[in-house]
Amino acid sequence: MNEYAMLHVPDSRYCFPVGEREIVIRLRTAREDREAEVFLLYNCKYLFQQQQVRLRMEIKYSDRLYDYYETRLFLEDVRLAYIFEIREGGKTTYYSEDGLTENYCFEEGFYNFFQMPYINKNDVMPVVDWMRSAVFYQIFVERFALGNRKKDLSYITMEWGEIPNPKSFAGGDLRGIVDKLDYLEGLGVTALYLTPVFPSISNHKYDIMDYKTIDSSFGSKEDFRELVTKAHEKGIKIVLDAVFNHCSMQLAQFQDVMKNGKASPYFHWFLIDGDYPEPEQPNYECFASCNYMPKINTANPDAQNFLLDIACYWIREFDIDGWRLDVSDEVSHEFWRRFRYAVKEEKADCVIIGENWHDAYPYLQGDQYDGIMNYSFTKACLDYFAKDRFDAKQMADKLSSNLMRNTEQVNYMMLNLLDTHDTHRFFTELGEDKEKLLAAVALEMVFPGAPCIYYGTEICMAGGYDPDSRRCFDWEERRWDLRVMEMIKQLIALRRLNTLQYGDVGIWEEQEMLCVRRRLKESENNHEVRLYINLSKKQQRLPAEAVKNVLCSNLWQEGILDNRGFVVMEGEWK
Amino acid sequence: MNEYAMLHVPDSRYCFPVGEREIVIRLRTAREDREAEVFLLYNCKYLFQQQQVRLRMEIKYSDRLYDYYETRLFLEDVRLAYIFEIREGGKTTYYSEDGLTENYCFEEGFYNFFQMPYINKNDVMPVVDWMRSAVFYQIFVERFALGNRKKDLSYITMEWGEIPNPKSFAGGDLRGIVDKLDYLEGLGVTALYLTPVFPSISNHKYDIMDYKTIDSSFGSKEDFRELVTKAHEKGIKIVLDAVFNHCSMQLAQFQDVMKNGKASPYFHWFLIDGDYPEPEQPNYECFASCNYMPKINTANPDAQNFLLDIACYWIREFDIDGWRLDVSDEVSHEFWRRFRYAVKEEKADCVIIGENWHDAYPYLQGDQYDGIMNYSFTKACLDYFAKDRFDAKQMADKLSSNLMRNTEQVNYMMLNLLDTHDTHRFFTELGEDKEKLLAAVALEMVFPGAPCIYYGTEICMAGGYDPDSRRCFDWEERRWDLRVMEMIKQLIALRRLNTLQYGDVGIWEEQEMLCVRRRLKESENNHEVRLYINLSKKQQRLPAEAVKNVLCSNLWQEGILDNRGFVVMEGEWK
Repeated sequence: MNEYAMLHVPDSRYCFPVGEREIVIRLRTAREDREAEVFLLYNCKYLFQQQQVRLRMEIKYSDRLYDYYETRLFLEDVRLAYIFEIREGGKTTYYSEDGLTENYCFEEGFYNFFQMPYINKNDVMPVVDWMRSAVFYQIFVERFALGNRKKDLSYITMEWGEIPNPKSFAGGDLRGIVDKLDYLEGLGVTALYLTPVFPSISNHKYDIMDYKTIDSSFGSKEDFRELVTKAHEKGIKIVLDAVFNHCSMQLAQFQDVMKNGKASPYFHWFLIDGDYPEPEQPNYECFASCNYMPKINTANPDAQNFLLDIACYWIREFDIDGWRLDVSDEVSHEFWRRFRYAVKEEKADCVIIGENWHDAYPYLQGDQYDGIMNYSFTKACLDYFAKDRFDAKQMADKLSSNLMRNTEQVNYMMLNLLDTHDTHRFFTELGEDKEKLLAAVALEMVFPGAPCIYYGTEICMAGGYDPDSRRCFDWEERRWDLRVMEMIKQLIALRRLNTLQYGDVGIWEEQEMLCVRRRLKESENNHEVRLYINLSKKQQRLPAEAVKNVLCSNLWQEGILDNRGFVVMEGEWK
Repeated sequence: MNEYAMLHVPDSRYCFPVGEREIVIRLRTAREDREAEVFLLYNCKYLFQQQQVRLRMEIKYSDRLYDYYETRLFLEDVRLAYIFEIREGGKTTYYSEDGLTENYCFEEGFYNFFQMPYINKNDVMPVVDWMRSAVFYQIFVERFALGNRKKDLSYITMEWGEIPNPKSFAGGDLRGIVDKLDYLEGLGVTALYLTPVFPSISNHKYDIMDYKTIDSSFGSKEDFRELVTKAHEKGIKIVLDAVFNHCSMQLAQFQDVMKNGKASPYFHWFLIDGDYPEPEQPNYECFASCNYMPKINTANPDAQNFLLDIACYWIREFDIDGWRLDVSDEVSHEFWRRFRYAVKEEKADCVIIGENWHDAYPYLQGDQYDGIMNYSFTKACLDYFAKDRFDAKQMADKLSSNLMRNTEQVNYMMLNLLDTHDTHRFFTELGEDKEKLLAAVALEMVFPGAPCIYYGTEICMAGGYDPDSRRCFDWEERRWDLRVMEMIKQLIALRRLNTLQYGDVGIWEEQEMLCVRRRLKESENNHEVRLYINLSKKQQRLPAEAVKNVLCSNLWQEGILDNRGFVVMEGEWK
C-alpha cells in the first residue's frame, strides 16, 4: 500500500454520524492500490480488545489520485473503536492512529485505535429536509421585475433593458417578484434567494444602512410580508442575504462613531486605528478596499448581539426560511456559532448558506453553516463545459473530490450554482451554447445538493462580469427560446424524484461521457437515475441493454448521444 | 514530488493564527522529497491576482513518513491568500486547493488559492499563560495524605501503606494535602490536579452524588477553601476533576427518575430505554458497563445548565484554576462549546484539559478544550523507555508526529504524563529503573506542554494497574531515594527557564540519542536548551564543541553519556 496516500481522521468528514445510531466511515487510499481488500474491524470500544466485527469496505468515489472507501454502520452501542485491515498480495497490514503497521496489538488498542467515542444527539448534523428537493432561483432584486409603477420612480437612471453601469437603477422591486410568483411557480422553483433588500444607496444593496426595514425603492415591509406569504402558499421558500461582514458608512452606529469617535458606545463595533474613522484615507477595516463599507467587528459582543437580533427578527416577524451569508469567510467562527444557535432556536429548518468560495470544511462541521454557495462546483463546470480544460474523466474526478470535502449531510445542503451576480453569466462563458447550458443545468439537478438558477438563465440571458451579469430580466416573451425554457422546466421537475432527494451518488467517466448516478440506499431492485453528458466531440452510442427509461434529454436518439448532449434515464442497470 | 504525501488544510492545524496579525503555516511533504525547495507565495487576497510575496520555507519537523515545513507570517493585511511553489530538479510546480499542478493561473486564483480570509480576534486561541511554566502534580486524594485524624475514621478499611483493593479506604483527605503544601512547594510543582473531591461512595469518587459539596471523608468546603487559598499563596494552582459524562445512581436527579420514571422532570437528563431505569439489567446508558454510573445526556439543555452551573460555581466561589474533564470524549461537542464559553467568562485563564486518549483535534480547535491528558506522549514514552519498541529515531519521529496533530497553542497546553491513576506506574513499567525514570522526567520537562507528575513518582512508588497504581503515599522519609528526589526537583526547576516556556521545539536522533531542542523564536544568538537521552545500550560521546553548560544530568561525565543517561545543557550550538 502507498502509505503516504492513506488518510483517515475520526470525528471529521472521514467519520461522522448521520443519525443517532448511524455512522459513515471513509478511508482514502492511493488509486494504484485498488487491488487490495480493505476491511473495517470494529466493536464497542470497551469490547474491541477482545473481539472485532470484520466488514469488507467498497470504493465509493475516486478522484485523480485517490480512492475513497465508504461504509455505513448501524450501531447498537455507539461507543465505537475501529481500525482498518488491508489484505494485498497475501500480506495483511493494519491501519490505525499509528499509521500502517504489519502487526496490531489489540490489547493496547485503547492507545491507538480510531474511535468515535459516542454519538451525542446534539452532535448529529441534521439535514434541513426541504433542501433535498429545493430548486433555488437567485434574484438580483433591482433587475428582476418592476412591479410598483406608482412609487416615486425618479431614482431610476436607465430604461429597463439597457446595459447597466455600476451605478444604474432600473427599478426592480418586491412587487415585481410578487407579480411573477406564478411565473416562478410555473418554472418549478421552490426557493428564492434574494440579494439584499434593506436600505442602501447602491443598486446591489450590499452596503446596508438599516437592517430592520425594506429599501424604499424595493417596497415596504408589507410588500415583503405579502411576498413571503404568497410564496409560501405556492410552496416557495424565501432566503435573504445577511450582509454581516460589513455595513454602509451610513449605518447609524458608524455615523455615531464618525461623530463621537472613541466616546461612541459603538466605537468597538468597528476596527479603527485611531480616535475617529477617516474615510478619505481609511484608517479602519473595510470590505475589500471600499471605504464606504466599514467592516463590522464580529468579535465584539454588542455588535454580535445587534446582528443576531436582526437575524432572528426577520425569521420571527416575517417567517423567512434561510439566510445566505455574504463574505461569510471573513466573519468570525465564534460569531457564526452564536448565529447558528440563535437562528435554529428561532426556526429549526431555517437554512444557513455561507458565501465561501473555497473548501469551507471549518465552517461546515455542524456548528456553523449548513452549506455554502458551491463555487468549486461552478469552477468545475466552467473547466468542463466552457473552457475545455477537463475531459469527462477529469470532471468526474473533480466532482468526486469536491464531495469528499464534506460530510454527506452538508453535500445535501450545498447550493450548486453555475453563475451568480459575482461571476460572468455561465451562458456567456459557454459562448452562448444552449445545448451545453442545458447539459450543465441537468448536472445541477442530478447532483447532490440544491441547484440554484441565476435569474434569466431560463431565457438564456447573457452578460460578462459585474455589472454586466446584472442586466434586466427580459419579459418580452417573444424573445424567449421556449424550447430551452421548457427543457429547464423538465429538468427542474426531476428534483421531485425521491432518488434525487435521498439517493447516494456515484460519478465516473464512461465512453468519454460523464456519468452521474443516484441510487436510493434502501433500493432493493437497484433502481437508479443516471445522467450522461457527452462533450467528447463525437457521438457516443450506449449499448442497448444500458438504455433505460428516458426522463429528459436534448441531443439523444435511439441510444445515441450527440456531442453537447445529455440524457437522464431511470431504471435498473446491470 | 510525491503528491500523495502532500497535505495542507487552511484554517486548521496546518494554518492557524497565533495572534491578531500572526499566522503559522505548515505544509506536509514526503520525507523523500527533502531536496526540493519550497516557497510560500502569498499576499492579501484582494491583491494576490496581481502580485505575491515569495518566502522560502524550512523543514521544522520530520516523522517516519513526512517532513513538515513551517513558516510564521506577520501580516499587515490579515486577509491572506497563498499557494506553495516547489522547485525540484529544475522543474517548478504549484500546490493549491487543486493539488499539485505544473502551472498556476493566478487570474482565477480566487477559485483555488488557499486562504485565511481574515483573522478575527475571537478566533485566535489564546495560551493560558500560567500553563507555560506549570508543573502539575496529580493527587489521588484518598491515597496521598491523611490530615484530619479527628474525623470519624470508621470508614477506613486498610492501614496506610497496605496494598489496596478496589474497595479500600485509606483515609487520605484535603487536610492532608494542605499539610503537605510545603512539601509540594519544595518539589517545585505549581499546579495540583486532584481526582474528584465531591461526595461519592467509592474511593475514586468518579461516581458523584452531589456536585456542590465536598465528600465528608475528604473534608469540608472550608477545608477546600483553605487548600485553594494556601496553594495560591505559594503560587500553586488547583485543578479539579469534572465528571460530567456520568454521575452516581445516588444523584438526586437520577433517584427522582428511579421513583417517578417518565413523570420526572429529570427523565431526559439520562438516556433510558423504557419508562423507568432498571439497574439490574441496565436499560439506560452508563459509563463503560457500570450500572451505578448512569450517563448524563449532555444533549439535554436542562442537564447542560445543571453542569454549567457546577463548573462556574467552583470557580466563582472557590477560585479554582482549571477543570480536567473525565471521559470527555464521550460528552457532546456542543456541550463542551457551552462549557468553554461559561468557564472562560467566569475566569479567562481557567484551564480546560480533556481526558481524550486519542488524537483530539476535533475538541482542540479553540472552541472546546485548551489541551488534553497527552496519552499519546505516554504511549511513546512507554515504547521508548520501557518496552524497547522504539529507538531514538523512532521516538523522535513519534514525538514530532504528535506535535503536528495540533496547533502551537494547544501544544503548549497539553498535559504530558508518564502515568496516572488509570495506567500502571511508569516506574513499574520501567522495571523500576531509576535512571530511565529520571530521563523520562527530563523529557517531560523539556517537551512543550505542562508536565504532570503522578503523586509519588518522586519517591519511586511502584504499582500495576488499578487499584495497584493507587497505593498510599509513603511518608517515611527514610525509605525515599533522596538522590532521585533531588534530581526531580532540579528537573522541575528547569521549567522556570524562559526558553522552555516560550521556545520552539525541534526533535531528532543524533548518534543514536534522542535530542530535544528548545529555542526562543526571538533569540538573536541561537541560545538553546537541549536534552540528550541515551538508550542506545552503549556510551555516546558528544564532540567537545557540542558540549555546553550542563544544567542537569545523571550518567554524564566529561562529554560522555552512559546508557540510560540524560543531560540537559544550554548554550549556543554550531
